[in-house]
Amino acid sequence: MITLEKVRQRAESDAKTYGYFLNPNPDFLNDLLEGLKKNEERYGYPACPCRVASGKLELDRDIICPCDYRDPDVAEFGACYCALYVRKDIIEGKTSLEPIPERRPKEKQERAYAISAEDPREKPLETKTTIPQEPMQVKKKLWYCKQCGYVVFREDPPYVCPICKAKREMFAEIALDVRANG
Amino acid sequence: MITLEKVRQRAESDAKTYGYFLNPNPDFLNDLLEGLKKNEERYGYPACPCRVASGKLELDRDIICPCDYRDPDVAEFGACYCALYVRKDIIEGKTSLEPIPERRPKEKQERAYAISAEDPREKPLETKTTIPQEPMQVKKKLWYCKQCGYVVFREDPPYVCPICKAKREMFAEIALDVRANG
Amino acid sequence: MITLEKVRQRAESDAKTYGYFLNPNPDFLNDLLEGLKKNEERYGYPACPCRVASGKLELDRDIICPCDYRDPDVAEFGACYCALYVRKDIIEGKTSLEPIPERRPKEKQERAYAISAEDPREKPLETKTTIPQEPMQVKKKLWYCKQCGYVVFREDPPYVCPICKAKREMFAEIALDVRANG
Repeated sequence: MITLEKVRQRAESDAKTYGYFLNPNPDFLNDLLEGLKKNEERYGYPACPCRVASGKLELDRDIICPCDYRDPDVAEFGACYCALYVRKDIIEGKTSLEPIPERRPKEKQERAYAISAEDPREKPLETKTTIPQEPMQVKKKLWYCKQCGYVVFREDPPYVCPICKAKREMFAEIALDVRANG
Repeated sequence: MITLEKVRQRAESDAKTYGYFLNPNPDFLNDLLEGLKKNEERYGYPACPCRVASGKLELDRDIICPCDYRDPDVAEFGACYCALYVRKDIIEGKTSLEPIPERRPKEKQERAYAISAEDPREKPLETKTTIPQEPMQVKKKLWYCKQCGYVVFREDPPYVCPICKAKREMFAEIALDVRANG
Repeated sequence: MITLEKVRQRAESDAKTYGYFLNPNPDFLNDLLEGLKKNEERYGYPACPCRVASGKLELDRDIICPCDYRDPDVAEFGACYCALYVRKDIIEGKTSLEPIPERRPKEKQERAYAISAEDPREKPLETKTTIPQEPMQVKKKLWYCKQCGYVVFREDPPYVCPICKAKREMFAEIALDVRANG
């Protein structure tokens, strides 16, 4: 069972690991955590409470909290898109929080919305004309961090290496050198 | 050299990373840390002080502290099997600690016990009748977390992703798509 | 943009994750953080401020902060080579800090220095006689931690597993079992 306390604890631990803080406004924070809990119950994963999820894990992967965009957004703007995670100087009032632009690429948004639109729960059946012949496949690759060697299997590398905190540019694809014996 | 202080520090750091606490009873905690130290000296790895280790790394892997079962046990019961790691509400006295059932699958226990029984140090030589023809091999696979892309090479995926804290169900096998050139 | 605050925050978070502390001398600490910032601006990665970097990522990888040698040095001597990261008992004055010998293997130092010496910015053009025919390639392998399954793609495995803190001896190469279909 997913409890609000568990969602909060997970967010708190993650904030500590990265040196971030949770939003200092208790009501606002509570709403975000409730949103995460509701999404986890609905989809099976805590999709970002401030974005529309498609309900397809592969297409929502980048917006599962902590989303792919959190780290560059906290670095550049002082908070993630939702303002769940904020930087120390924001908490201390040294910097004021400005609206955070959506960093999620348009093509990922559109890809996910296209699937949502196909969901029969979302619109009356008679308007549903085309059914895709096969499920959309996201092409995954093995990537590694050139700084620490961390390996991930994803469509794109992370913005920040979770192990050594290197930037996305430090990731490269692993080209497996495979030889057939005869 | 393994010192008690090093064992304690490693446990403390790990507890912080996951938002857990070490057992608040100092004598009980000390006994557990001493047990971990002794196991690390004996086996080369800190096998769980509350379980019988086989001495074969591959068969004990799941019970090396923090064991594979810690995270689901803390989530469900408030503490790991040993009660080395406990949840905040237990520390605060809001929830009382009940006995924690053994989550380690029977087949893993039996597999390890079978090997222990073969150890000549454990029983007199004359009772040792069958010697296995080849060492038991644990079949490992590459798994990845569908939520964050984290890659592990193990028999089974972890119960909780150490990077994004997704549940075991989020792990899938990486099927390497290998093509031979002629 | 790299700010001193960001360099400091990254070091602080990392220290917490491992249970270390940053050097307690504020001026000394500031110099080290400034050195890291300068190296990140110059090379694109925060090479150790106490060592000479070659400027080639592949050859400097082991000395990117936190360097490969930090964990065994903190364990053995109470601080890393730079004394940026120090152990609790040093902070508490229970142990005094002795000079830390260079753990970086001679062959890695020499390999990096050979490249530095080839850099035309480093010496007048007329003394530059031999140009290497092809860039030095560091051979990388897939390694996994036998304790937790963590996978890295590097020349050598890490001294300490960043996930479960197992020692380097727990790492083994992943030999991919590849079969060609006809």
